[in-house]
Amino acid sequence: MQSQIVVFLCILVLGRAAIISNDCKTTQTLNERLMYDKRLIYMGEYFPLDYKIYVRYEEVLRCQNITNLINQGITVKELRYLWGIVNERVLFKIKEVLPGRHPSFGYITDLLSILKSFLPETEHQVDSEIINEVLVTLKKETETRKPVRPKALLDNCFKVFHLLYEEECRLCNPRSASEGETFCESSDCYQ
Amino acid sequence: MQSQIVVFLCILVLGRAAIISNDCKTTQTLNERLMYDKRLIYMGEYFPLDYKIYVRYEEVLRCQNITNLINQGITVKELRYLWGIVNERVLFKIKEVLPGRHPSFGYITDLLSILKSFLPETEHQVDSEIINEVLVTLKKETETRKPVRPKALLDNCFKVFHLLYEEECRLCNPRSASEGETFCESSDCYQ
Repeated sequence: MQSQIVVFLCILVLGRAAIISNDCKTTQTLNERLMYDKRLIYMGEYFPLDYKIYVRYEEVLRCQNITNLINQGITVKELRYLWGIVNERVLFKIKEVLPGRHPSFGYITDLLSILKSFLPETEHQVDSEIINEVLVTLKKETETRKPVRPKALLDNCFKVFHLLYEEECRLCNPRSASEGETFCESSDCYQ
Repeated sequence: MQSQIVVFLCILVLGRAAIISNDCKTTQTLNERLMYDKRLIYMGEYFPLDYKIYVRYEEVLRCQNITNLINQGITVKELRYLWGIVNERVLFKIKEVLPGRHPSFGYITDLLSILKSFLPETEHQVDSEIINEVLVTLKKETETRKPVRPKALLDNCFKVFHLLYEEECRLCNPRSASEGETFCESSDCYQ
């Protein structure tokens, strides 16, 4: 009987490890797609220098906002959910302005499809009043919008994503001097 | 003596034919570069759908303006000069907003270099008061600008160019149903 319990516990542990590993695989794929060189070429170089997309204030989700929300007791799970919802909207907005043969169209379509596998089906897991308020505000009509460069939108997307998944999935962020982002040791990089 | 005159006249005629042919070669190269499929991909598909460039009213030179100017007695030579000046400015403006690795950068750079060989060094050949006034206005500072799609700017550039050079250089304009432009017989097409 004791050996059966040990086997059961082993299966449980291995199963959980496999789930985490699978989650991290998608996370790592997304991390790779959001790397600086790709953001630079697809969201920077392939757009006119003065081009901006009008987004809602709530759609500009920066590291500073996340830190503030953490200080207010919001859980990482809820923050990840918020990040997913906001960035799905942002990617849709970028895709909407791109003709089908624009060289960044495939990149955005690909990002959107990976992001979809991140988004849970329902919002039941969000208990926080603050996050629910942001989600409700996002759905309301508004005239107030902010012009933001497409690359700046994806820079925010990447930085917050990194903040929320780096530790759990040992994400790699090769040096990009122009971004001033932290370089992780090569031993930290996934293959 | 009579045979010497005949030889001289022959050389004169042949020389003139050679000059016209050379001029038309550049014209035909430009015509080929400005074809609908190129304008569509480089100035349409490679730009965000809602992107517009702010230009002066005088920089939007349409066939209708040319017709009006012809009715006011402006010569074709002067109109070609005006077209060249206006479109050099327009191409510069488009180039200014493009990062060096944008897929339309090479196209615009190429067009600008071909156009340069069209522009005479001085403005001495312009006698018309009306054209001189437009040229002076173009150099003045102004706050009033008009937002125009990059493709619309090159559509105007192409249509007026065709109007001014089609007959002399037997320019070809393969059918582009979406443009509603006149189709020339294949026998009219240069090789």
